[in-house]
Amino acid sequence: VTTLLVIGTGLIGGSFALASRAAGSVDRVLGCDADAATLAIAVRRGIVDAPCSGLAAGVAEADVVLVAVPPLATAAVVADVFACGVRSGAMVMDAASVKLAVIDAVQARIGRLPAQYVPAHPMAGAERHGPGAAAADLFAGCQTLLTPTADTGTAAVARCAALWRAVGAHVDQVAPGVHDAIVARTSHLPHLVAYAYMSIAAGADPAQAAACAGPGLRDFTRIAAADPALWRQIIEANESAMLEPLDQLLGALQGLRNQIAERRFDAIQAEFEHARALRHVFTPFFERARGGTNDAR
Amino acid sequence: VTTLLVIGTGLIGGSFALASRAAGSVDRVLGCDADAATLAIAVRRGIVDAPCSGLAAGVAEADVVLVAVPPLATAAVVADVFACGVRSGAMVMDAASVKLAVIDAVQARIGRLPAQYVPAHPMAGAERHGPGAAAADLFAGCQTLLTPTADTGTAAVARCAALWRAVGAHVDQVAPGVHDAIVARTSHLPHLVAYAYMSIAAGADPAQAAACAGPGLRDFTRIAAADPALWRQIIEANESAMLEPLDQLLGALQGLRNQIAERRFDAIQAEFEHARALRHVFTPFFERARGGTNDAR
Repeated sequence: VTTLLVIGTGLIGGSFALASRAAGSVDRVLGCDADAATLAIAVRRGIVDAPCSGLAAGVAEADVVLVAVPPLATAAVVADVFACGVRSGAMVMDAASVKLAVIDAVQARIGRLPAQYVPAHPMAGAERHGPGAAAADLFAGCQTLLTPTADTGTAAVARCAALWRAVGAHVDQVAPGVHDAIVARTSHLPHLVAYAYMSIAAGADPAQAAACAGPGLRDFTRIAAADPALWRQIIEANESAMLEPLDQLLGALQGLRNQIAERRFDAIQAEFEHARALRHVFTPFFERARGGTNDAR
Repeated sequence: VTTLLVIGTGLIGGSFALASRAAGSVDRVLGCDADAATLAIAVRRGIVDAPCSGLAAGVAEADVVLVAVPPLATAAVVADVFACGVRSGAMVMDAASVKLAVIDAVQARIGRLPAQYVPAHPMAGAERHGPGAAAADLFAGCQTLLTPTADTGTAAVARCAALWRAVGAHVDQVAPGVHDAIVARTSHLPHLVAYAYMSIAAGADPAQAAACAGPGLRDFTRIAAADPALWRQIIEANESAMLEPLDQLLGALQGLRNQIAERRFDAIQAEFEHARALRHVFTPFFERARGGTNDAR
């Protein structure tokens, strides 16, 4: 019997539990959540077989532990899990969107990085969150990035990768700092821009603007429906990697602004063509993914 | 027998022809296109019953004329149509994404604004373009904005509105200048931002960035796959309305940049919450639309 303990039974934790059971990777799912109502929904939906009375009771039985709580809470929970005494051969992974800040905080709390701990980031999310939105196919075709450190054990990495592949994810390994710099560009910046843009789109009369909205706006702003409290934590945890791509975007937009004011539309078209060619580099990676609309947790 | 003449048999013209025939609004479709290959595809796909040997021959038979050519070419074609002699009781509409520049150019070319001419803007588009991408359901649930002037006849407006409703569109009327100011915010600015953002997302290693891309990036950048030549024309035609929302977005992003640098994350979360509330104003308008991914032509 393989027992999974999910700490944080929301969209990501709940979906991983549903998908892992469907894939046959785990036989039994224990669940903890700081929010009793969330845990109750997860139990009612059959995501969790048994709620844990306390963290220690769950950790003592778990072969696999998934810490799927908001980024700024992740390190403390990982440290608590190891303080409870992880089983020999068990593997503990997190699911936070930012890795260096979490890894550094785990090291600071425990005094070392346990070999059984694998920092991981499944890139899937949805407009809705919580266990009510959990789905067994959320990770199908999505990317999961593992960011092992020099202290992470190879057996733990292999087990983590196999579990994510079993739920349909594509798994890659990347250094934690490289991960944070890349997702600052590819995930955190677009969420920031989509949020910032909503006020501009709405203008003085949001209802009138909404009545004139086309499908481009719908897709472009889908990520502005993501959980503000979660995304504030992601931006906060990855603060040091955010400024460079944000400044680059400000420069690019200022450049386009000047080209419009100077009526240099040939140059604008050349930039659009370059952008479309870059978009086509991404297309094959998008086409393999079926689910999800944003990249949290 | 009601005869439709489509000038420009690409995605928009082709889709309107297919949808209008399916709805029973028109019995016969004539087609013109500056590009012979495009017209040949439209004929082969059964979108057009008969290609026109010349514009005059088509206009002479047409009860409804749809001018669905790129924005900067639209006014000249509308003027040519009226120079051919539009039938009494016929209605001529365009489909350009920008209205004031087109209307002013029509007036300059003809010396007046014909009562039979209805400026229109169906807000639907797709990543693919041309008659090969035309679909009878492209306009289902999408918005079509009519921007009649003081010279536009009420019978022509009513006929135009009925035709767009027949293909499943929601139809609203708005003054041309108001239209241009709103779509600068809700459509043209996000396309500009999505194009500008692609270089930042790709960074120094586009393939690596693509391998780390999540569903948020996929949706956010879908409009960066839109036709660069078309969108250059849209930005050029709506240049005077672009700078205000673009400057507002630059200000908002600069503000977020400063808040990150000053670690004012509570303020950032408040802005995210405001943005999500605004996004929810738009949601009912998005949910009624089934097709399309961008807002051109």
